[in-house]
Amino acid sequence: MALIVQKYGGTSVGTVEKIQLVAEKIIETKKEGHQVVVVVSAMSGETNRLLALAKNISSSPDNRELDVLLSTGEQVTIALLSMALKEKGFDAISYTGGQISIQTDSAHSKARINNIEVGRVQRELEDGRIVVIAGFQGVDEHGNITTLGRGGSDTTAVAMATALSAQECRIYTDVNGVYTADPRIVDDAKKLSSITYEEMLEMASLGSKVLQTRAVEFAGKYNINLRVLSSFEEGSGTLITNEEEIMEAALISGIAHNTDEAKLTVIGVPDKPGVASLILTPIAEANIEVDMIVQNVGVNNSTDFTFTVHRNDYDKAMSILKRTAKEINAADVIGDDKIVKISVVGVGMRSHAGVARTIFKVLADEKINIQMISTSEIKVSVVVDEKHLESGVRTLHMAFGLGKV
Amino acid sequence: MALIVQKYGGTSVGTVEKIQLVAEKIIETKKEGHQVVVVVSAMSGETNRLLALAKNISSSPDNRELDVLLSTGEQVTIALLSMALKEKGFDAISYTGGQISIQTDSAHSKARINNIEVGRVQRELEDGRIVVIAGFQGVDEHGNITTLGRGGSDTTAVAMATALSAQECRIYTDVNGVYTADPRIVDDAKKLSSITYEEMLEMASLGSKVLQTRAVEFAGKYNINLRVLSSFEEGSGTLITNEEEIMEAALISGIAHNTDEAKLTVIGVPDKPGVASLILTPIAEANIEVDMIVQNVGVNNSTDFTFTVHRNDYDKAMSILKRTAKEINAADVIGDDKIVKISVVGVGMRSHAGVARTIFKVLADEKINIQMISTSEIKVSVVVDEKHLESGVRTLHMAFGLGKV
Repeated sequence: MALIVQKYGGTSVGTVEKIQLVAEKIIETKKEGHQVVVVVSAMSGETNRLLALAKNISSSPDNRELDVLLSTGEQVTIALLSMALKEKGFDAISYTGGQISIQTDSAHSKARINNIEVGRVQRELEDGRIVVIAGFQGVDEHGNITTLGRGGSDTTAVAMATALSAQECRIYTDVNGVYTADPRIVDDAKKLSSITYEEMLEMASLGSKVLQTRAVEFAGKYNINLRVLSSFEEGSGTLITNEEEIMEAALISGIAHNTDEAKLTVIGVPDKPGVASLILTPIAEANIEVDMIVQNVGVNNSTDFTFTVHRNDYDKAMSILKRTAKEINAADVIGDDKIVKISVVGVGMRSHAGVARTIFKVLADEKINIQMISTSEIKVSVVVDEKHLESGVRTLHMAFGLGKV
Repeated sequence: MALIVQKYGGTSVGTVEKIQLVAEKIIETKKEGHQVVVVVSAMSGETNRLLALAKNISSSPDNRELDVLLSTGEQVTIALLSMALKEKGFDAISYTGGQISIQTDSAHSKARINNIEVGRVQRELEDGRIVVIAGFQGVDEHGNITTLGRGGSDTTAVAMATALSAQECRIYTDVNGVYTADPRIVDDAKKLSSITYEEMLEMASLGSKVLQTRAVEFAGKYNINLRVLSSFEEGSGTLITNEEEIMEAALISGIAHNTDEAKLTVIGVPDKPGVASLILTPIAEANIEVDMIVQNVGVNNSTDFTFTVHRNDYDKAMSILKRTAKEINAADVIGDDKIVKISVVGVGMRSHAGVARTIFKVLADEKINIQMISTSEIKVSVVVDEKHLESGVRTLHMAFGLGKV
């Protein structure tokens, strides 16, 4: 007998019929003799419905009250799912974030979990019950309702698995696992049976939107086995675990890409200390997130400074940069939002110097010009013109032998 | 400066626009210099929407989970109303039943309030905030969410007013007060400026559905001034208070009627001890509520036993009674669901013997046959054929001089 945490997202519980199917899946695991804790999101569409109500009241609704409002979404799901389980003859009980004391800080709409008191959940499990918990929500030290931000149910699931020392945390989604590349681009993309936390983090932050980055970080920190699998298909999905658990780590796990970015370059920046900060501070103050940053060595006391932002922030960033450029006497600001970031990810590359060289050679052979390069210990990312998305991803996928055998 | 509790029902907060209007009404009271606690129901239609979801999952949904589900309705309203108040520049804060510890027993879907801890609400009021509280809900001693049953928001409001020693508890509804008779029947029915708790209880239980009986009982027990007024019109409504507060109590306050009842008679019942219990036990076990009961003195060791039930329960009660009649060797069972109960209510009748006599004479003059009679200290009820509803109510209204001067 093991303790399994299962998490079902909004699409998986989007209708009464789907809730019934989820109940069947939970019962399967229960029948295998396991203790089961289930974390659920709001029914799909519900959070947007509630947000629309709030927006009709106020263009910038109070954050505390928004959390009171949005947290009802998951509360509806836990009640319905528990009813469905009971109707099918399995004892179940629902808990809101507040009821089992998922303690968070007070940062409404983006709270972080500080502590979970699991005594009550453990007693319910010992009594043979399936425990159904509202994801995405908690309470601060004053008992105010908080939410963890969009996708926070993944984090709730991992946090519960950690607090309960669960054997595995299973995240049910609308895909059946993590692939070596986007199957819509690469025909023979292969489902990975396992991947490390670090690789998954790189994949996630690079555009493979299977899991919340925060949940993966959390799982990695506490060494919780995390499994991504489909709510609607059979199959064992992809296990996300630590490097030691994966017998023979592949050199490269996958090719990720991200078409959501745009790049901006300040040309002719005086090459002196503090200039990078002068450029990025107004960007940060406008709540624009910066991804890649590249600055080359200066020539003739002048350099170029390039960074990427989300495409939605491109125009805003451009107008801010133009003001900054004048203030710091830079020559000009140029930009491009028709780019794609392609990344090669794998823990194996730590010990193999040749990965970057292979990437550059393969892309050169395809006549793909590399605009920016950024590397981490387990990842090499290049920015290229977006017209090269498909050929770039396919070529790299083949070059590293990731296809189906 | 006084402390005023205001309660708005589902129709009053049924849309975002109506919530904005309610916010304006609350702000008026706040601007008069009062401390304001607001109790709200779920937006109209929301409770039925949630119930329909549950019924799609299970024909008899688990009671605990039903309360988890239904309590989200009020939680949505408190968040939206607090946002609206803040948007209009007034500091407000929302609380669920659980957050301010509205402690109830564990009778899910019909819980009773045991205790309310008001410390937190009092601190918010002292800080100048408008406190917006979810009606209809509480928590039991184990932290399980409970609901007080339909209309329970009135009870929450009165309980809050009691716990906070409020000066007045104002129940905003879609009528502008309590009338001497139904204005749809009696043209010159008059709005009462005040009425006693006892009279209001009789009126409420007799079909004037302005207020929940339980809320009136609660207010009477703790001597809380209760005021019924309109959410949408100006006016001071009707004050429900104790007899001493009403300078000159009228002999008769009003004429109530109830068209929801049906009567059943067991004929030729053996006149011996225990028979009434034999007849009513199976009715009670079928969860059928009995209102009036009449049994006359027996003749020849045989008597007739008559009682009234809600019309919805008429068929069920009839088939139960037929089985019972056989078991106790009664002669027959007859019934009639085309009846109306008309009641004359007034604390003044305690000291005036002539009220019943006036009623019987007036009805006789109108050739209205009285089928059943039942009396309490402050009420005389008669059951007549439903075709006499209008003439009966109008005649009595006139006979007791209740019309507009």
